[in-house]
Amino acid sequence: MERHFDEELRELKGAVMRLASLARQALMKAVESLKDRDPAAARGVVDGDAALDALELEIDEKCLDLIARHQPMARDLRFITTAIKLNAELERIGDLAVDVAQRALELAGKPLLKPLVDIPRLAELAARMTGEATEAFINGDAELARRVVLSDPAADALKRAVEKELIEDYMMKDGSTADRAVPLLLAARHLERVADHAVSMAEDIIYMVDARVVRHHPEALGQRPEE
Amino acid sequence: MERHFDEELRELKGAVMRLASLARQALMKAVESLKDRDPAAARGVVDGDAALDALELEIDEKCLDLIARHQPMARDLRFITTAIKLNAELERIGDLAVDVAQRALELAGKPLLKPLVDIPRLAELAARMTGEATEAFINGDAELARRVVLSDPAADALKRAVEKELIEDYMMKDGSTADRAVPLLLAARHLERVADHAVSMAEDIIYMVDARVVRHHPEALGQRPEE
Repeated sequence: MERHFDEELRELKGAVMRLASLARQALMKAVESLKDRDPAAARGVVDGDAALDALELEIDEKCLDLIARHQPMARDLRFITTAIKLNAELERIGDLAVDVAQRALELAGKPLLKPLVDIPRLAELAARMTGEATEAFINGDAELARRVVLSDPAADALKRAVEKELIEDYMMKDGSTADRAVPLLLAARHLERVADHAVSMAEDIIYMVDARVVRHHPEALGQRPEE
Repeated sequence: MERHFDEELRELKGAVMRLASLARQALMKAVESLKDRDPAAARGVVDGDAALDALELEIDEKCLDLIARHQPMARDLRFITTAIKLNAELERIGDLAVDVAQRALELAGKPLLKPLVDIPRLAELAARMTGEATEAFINGDAELARRVVLSDPAADALKRAVEKELIEDYMMKDGSTADRAVPLLLAARHLERVADHAVSMAEDIIYMVDARVVRHHPEALGQRPEE
């Protein structure tokens, strides 16, 4: 039975990694579609979201089923309930990729306002944070999770730089740019929210790992590892 | 033991209702602070968020503890895992109230662009949907949850009306309004996202109730109640 449970936990981890990978791919594809003004690619992201939704549901069911059948103890239970939360965050990241793709569709028929530099950079950072948070979960790596949290100000700064430029250098100087500037401003916000979700994931993981340390090694309370 | 478990479930429901009530209060207060240009009230919302975060953590712990100690069966287990998800949604609604309050703070020193009509209307709708979703959860009321889902297009339409007006009637006609129009546009988006979270809650509840029906009354599969 124990062995079987471990097997199922491994499967759960695999499914979460798959969802994270789909979410990151959607994100990068959405930003490409924005950068390259490629409505077909953007539509691909919108249509692809159903697969993420289905996988989210499957993971939820798997978690529930694992709890119901194996009645796991504190450490495994916390792992599974953390998976439930991460699952929701990853699905939300997929939704944000769809949001970015929708901004690309809004802009498809209009002339390019400016070449995009900071937005793709922000997308890459957000995708990296998502990947690292997932890895931290799989390996119970609180140190990596803490690094994700520390990346958040960089994402915030990029978003603010995009916003400031679009408002002050474009819209306020020439109001007619507003309908092309606003979708870009929103895209930066969507991406910064992806980073926020990665941070939420990381915080859940830190909480999971620390609770495990405290619950299972009460002696560790006195001398907490640096992680 | 059974009785004790029911007692604890009731406590859990009470805590979720408390969190929902705090989130809705924060939301309405944030929109008031935007409407009345009241930075002190806005700061109150920002500072008040710590209480919501603490309650979210408490609810999570309560859920985990309930599962670990009572090892509930399918129906109760699904109720508790749904509570875990709703808990995260409600906390996120609180975060969005903070986002709205931050838009109020950004606008505090600047002249009013226009009297707000649709934004407070959207806030009321979003707060109502949040309240109804919570009530649907407490009472296992799938019909009420479905009504929340059906309110989403109205929230979307309000957001789009705000956006269209701000872009076409303000920014594009007079670019110098952009730094006052963008925070309003974002506030409408924050509020529409609150409505989205209420819809997510409602969907989780429908899923919880339907699964319960199917799992416990297989005969119901043939003639599903209209709910």
